[in-house]
Amino acid sequence: MRRSERLIRITKYLLDRPNSTVSLAELADGTGAAKSSVSEDVAMIRDVLAQEELGRVHTIAGAGGGVRFQVRVPTSLRERFEQRIIDQLADPARILPGGFLYMSDVLGDPDVLDFAGRLLAERFSDSPVNVVVTVETKGIPIAVATAHYLHVPVVVVRREHRVTDGAAVSVHYVSGSTRRIQTMSVSRRAMPTAARALIVDDFMRAGATVQTVKRLLAEFDAEVLGTAVFMATLEPETKLVDDYHALFSVGPLEEGRDVLIVPGGRQHLGDGTNRQGGEAE
Amino acid sequence: MRRSERLIRITKYLLDRPNSTVSLAELADGTGAAKSSVSEDVAMIRDVLAQEELGRVHTIAGAGGGVRFQVRVPTSLRERFEQRIIDQLADPARILPGGFLYMSDVLGDPDVLDFAGRLLAERFSDSPVNVVVTVETKGIPIAVATAHYLHVPVVVVRREHRVTDGAAVSVHYVSGSTRRIQTMSVSRRAMPTAARALIVDDFMRAGATVQTVKRLLAEFDAEVLGTAVFMATLEPETKLVDDYHALFSVGPLEEGRDVLIVPGGRQHLGDGTNRQGGEAE
Repeated sequence: MRRSERLIRITKYLLDRPNSTVSLAELADGTGAAKSSVSEDVAMIRDVLAQEELGRVHTIAGAGGGVRFQVRVPTSLRERFEQRIIDQLADPARILPGGFLYMSDVLGDPDVLDFAGRLLAERFSDSPVNVVVTVETKGIPIAVATAHYLHVPVVVVRREHRVTDGAAVSVHYVSGSTRRIQTMSVSRRAMPTAARALIVDDFMRAGATVQTVKRLLAEFDAEVLGTAVFMATLEPETKLVDDYHALFSVGPLEEGRDVLIVPGGRQHLGDGTNRQGGEAE
Repeated sequence: MRRSERLIRITKYLLDRPNSTVSLAELADGTGAAKSSVSEDVAMIRDVLAQEELGRVHTIAGAGGGVRFQVRVPTSLRERFEQRIIDQLADPARILPGGFLYMSDVLGDPDVLDFAGRLLAERFSDSPVNVVVTVETKGIPIAVATAHYLHVPVVVVRREHRVTDGAAVSVHYVSGSTRRIQTMSVSRRAMPTAARALIVDDFMRAGATVQTVKRLLAEFDAEVLGTAVFMATLEPETKLVDDYHALFSVGPLEEGRDVLIVPGGRQHLGDGTNRQGGEAE
């Protein structure tokens, strides 16, 4: 196999396995080349991706070592994505009774899901997250996209305990919007114990949902390393969850009034690595 | 930019945009090369991916033309995936009361979702599908993965009409398992009219769910081009839906008995393109 062919093969192999450790032996086997040649190929791929903020290729030393590709989103593409979402969502016709924002169409768009997944995976790429947890229903697509790029399982918390979930752990909570006692439940066998979880959801207002998911995860001795949402509200400013990362924040939603949407939202406490600032504060 | 660097860039650009038409001008702009050079690069990428069944690169002629990458799964990887799933799921401990198979853990695994998405996208890559429709909750992750590789939106049918879905169209049906009248509802604004839909779900027994989704989609003048499920049951052999594609089929589920799982399941009528045969018939 010629070098140019090898570069195509190895680029595809790495991109198909985001956040997974791939050994040089595996790459050498797949291309019929010496490990030293493969190593030079990987170095070139790393440099090309780094130049344009297209991704990071890490080298992991040691016996279980190899290389790992992590997604990055170039600033120019992120800004174009943010502007597109703001243009699409900041439309008074999207305000629903009760002060909700209609987003179902946008949250099914393949480019939006892919971008949201890449941005959240990039944001948490340095966290040792080993599971993404979400609550049915609207947060699931974003959670799946994020889990794909982090290469971790996704666990879906249900509003009801269904027979197909097998044995489950449940907690009760009082819904912020209806003031009724409700249930959240998660399949015991799907949720690993002592996991390092990233909670992903589509929308956060006061944070009662995420707070309840945290209580549920505590039953599995999970450590919650972060909370990420597609959209958070600017008000109430003080939420039940302190540390969260939002791709967007939205102002008051009242029928007939303009919708204000800004990129970003409250960051992890004491964490200065995010470029999106704390616009929601 | 050297040719080897260009090949890495273009490979990534195409893989990041599955089933999307990318113009040669776009690739030339992004790499600073002439269209003729970019065209040669694309030809090499096409040949390398074709050799190993890693993907197809189509050339679309004309004014709106360009190139389009479509996923393919090499036979060896598909067979390894099938064996892995069979080994994991054919476990009597997975049989739940009522004759259900516990799959929640497997349906959250990032490799399973990615493979299922690639296999279903490959299967329907020649259909002019422009939307993937699924029913909450368990089918959503597979639907999202499939929609990603087909590059079409995913629409989620709900069991209840929620305020955040805005105006919705609903139908009633009698649940096969509970014999109760239930509702299915889909957001009007999320579902395009006169769409060409692929229905995706995790599990199909008699097919009542898919049949109801079809009734719901008829309200939007949608044409259903296919139904794809992760797992179908071998019995009843005659389902309410004639034409479906299953990645796997499972035999009778009775506590204490062995579980039989085979790859594949009933194909589209009159369609001979699938390699997985009609093992479920």
